[in-house]
Amino acid sequence: MASQILPLELIDRCIGSRIWIITKSDREFTGTLTGFDDFVNMVLEDVTEFETTPEGVRKKTKLNQTLLNGNNICMLIPGSNGPDS
Amino acid sequence: MASQILPLELIDRCIGSRIWIITKSDREFTGTLTGFDDFVNMVLEDVTEFETTPEGVRKKTKLNQTLLNGNNICMLIPGSNGPDS
Amino acid sequence: MASQILPLELIDRCIGSRIWIITKSDREFTGTLTGFDDFVNMVLEDVTEFETTPEGVRKKTKLNQTLLNGNNICMLIPGSNGPDS
Amino acid sequence: MASQILPLELIDRCIGSRIWIITKSDREFTGTLTGFDDFVNMVLEDVTEFETTPEGVRKKTKLNQTLLNGNNICMLIPGSNGPDS
Amino acid sequence: MASQILPLELIDRCIGSRIWIITKSDREFTGTLTGFDDFVNMVLEDVTEFETTPEGVRKKTKLNQTLLNGNNICMLIPGSNGPDS
Amino acid sequence: MASQILPLELIDRCIGSRIWIITKSDREFTGTLTGFDDFVNMVLEDVTEFETTPEGVRKKTKLNQTLLNGNNICMLIPGSNGPDS
Amino acid sequence: MASQILPLELIDRCIGSRIWIITKSDREFTGTLTGFDDFVNMVLEDVTEFETTPEGVRKKTKLNQTLLNGNNICMLIPGSNGPDS
Repeated sequence: MASQILPLELIDRCIGSRIWIITKSDREFTGTLTGFDDFVNMVLEDVTEFETTPEGVRKKTKLNQTLLNGNNICMLIPGSNGPDS
Repeated sequence: MASQILPLELIDRCIGSRIWIITKSDREFTGTLTGFDDFVNMVLEDVTEFETTPEGVRKKTKLNQTLLNGNNICMLIPGSNGPDS
Repeated sequence: MASQILPLELIDRCIGSRIWIITKSDREFTGTLTGFDDFVNMVLEDVTEFETTPEGVRKKTKLNQTLLNGNNICMLIPGSNGPDS
Repeated sequence: MASQILPLELIDRCIGSRIWIITKSDREFTGTLTGFDDFVNMVLEDVTEFETTPEGVRKKTKLNQTLLNGNNICMLIPGSNGPDS
Repeated sequence: MASQILPLELIDRCIGSRIWIITKSDREFTGTLTGFDDFVNMVLEDVTEFETTPEGVRKKTKLNQTLLNGNNICMLIPGSNGPDS
Repeated sequence: MASQILPLELIDRCIGSRIWIITKSDREFTGTLTGFDDFVNMVLEDVTEFETTPEGVRKKTKLNQTLLNGNNICMLIPGSNGPDS
Repeated sequence: MASQILPLELIDRCIGSRIWIITKSDREFTGTLTGFDDFVNMVLEDVTEFETTPEGVRKKTKLNQTLLNGNNICMLIPGSNGPDS
């Protein structure tokens, strides 16, 4: 049987690295992952938030340390610097 | 392995400091964090609520001690004074 | 470390006092808090309900003893008499 | 400390009396409460359902014994005969 | 204290009888109740589904044995043959 | 008391037979049921998906072995070959 | 009785193979499945994301290793290379 990687293992390996997170409300974030818990709540540092305004304008906001609610996360891409990379 | 900070640890360190909270219904709050529980329900003091009215007008409301329902919180930014800072 | 107040403690202290409650469906209530449980279901007396009709008209309705479903509550402000105060 | 009334106690006291129930989908019901459980599923008799049609017309429907799903209930007002009272 | 009837008791008594079920997505069903479980998932026989199309046309569809997901049920009326009765 | 059939019993009897499944997002599927679990996640073979495009066009798609998420299922009709039968 | 295949067994057999995943927000993904857990959170490699923009344009995006939140998954088709295959 092919070897498996468990979701929480994947996130654990990403500690200290960049990660791209897409939420259910279509907000996107990139940042350095500094912590998480079993509910996949995530602590990021050196964060950029990507938003598309109702008028279709792509907006980028720099944020400091940020905690994201796990139950609002749709998908995450370890090692990626987001939609511009 | 890089050291980790757990989400609830991050919030715990923020007790007594300013925090910026964004909810799933796009209401935003800044305030001084005075308490929280495992469901991330949060008690704030000296609160400002930021709302955008349907007509696009940014509205700011001062509130006293306020309790926010954790399951409605999308993200939080410790140490920040919100969208104007 | 700064002292903490737990969310349910905050609500407990509010028994017998006025409280302003905002729900996820944007209905707002003020009333005297006479009881609650661990799910933050709340019993109010001498209640005023604030609603904005689709036409934008602010409507106020007086209600007797009322029980609000906790999982529909977005935020609450102890000691406040609501949007008009 | 002021005396408390727990939510389920309030409902229990209402057995055999009239009650007004408002759901998350804005349907409203009045009826005589004949039973309930810990999930606040509610059994009503001699029921009137109040609905507002998309055209804004207030519609009243008489129903026999009815069971309402607790997780769809937004608020309830014991002893009340609904919006017309 | 007035005698109580528990929600699951009410449903249990309805086994073998007609029942009218309204779901959260506004589909309505009548049928003979032949089984249910603690999550109020319901097995119906000799079923009629009532739907209102986007154009406002009332559509009736005959179905055989049908299983309805309990968490999608809004209310049920034991002994009733639905909106036409 | 009339004899009962439990929901999971009904599904179990349907293993190896055709079944019509309607989801909460109005997608419909027919297929041969080859497995399920307690969360009513369902494994189908020889599957046809029925969709109505925003323009109102009925679209049919043939799929191989498919797993449907139970919490997205609204209703199911054992032994049926779907809306065309 | 016909033999059964349990949902998690089906996914387990798919480790190392291609899989097509459709989410509740209508995003679609194909990729090689490299891991999953009991909540059906899924780790994919060599991923293509299929999106339909509000203007109806089909957009394809190549992604590296990606983790999808199980509670946002609607259906999955093991062994398939997605809507183009």
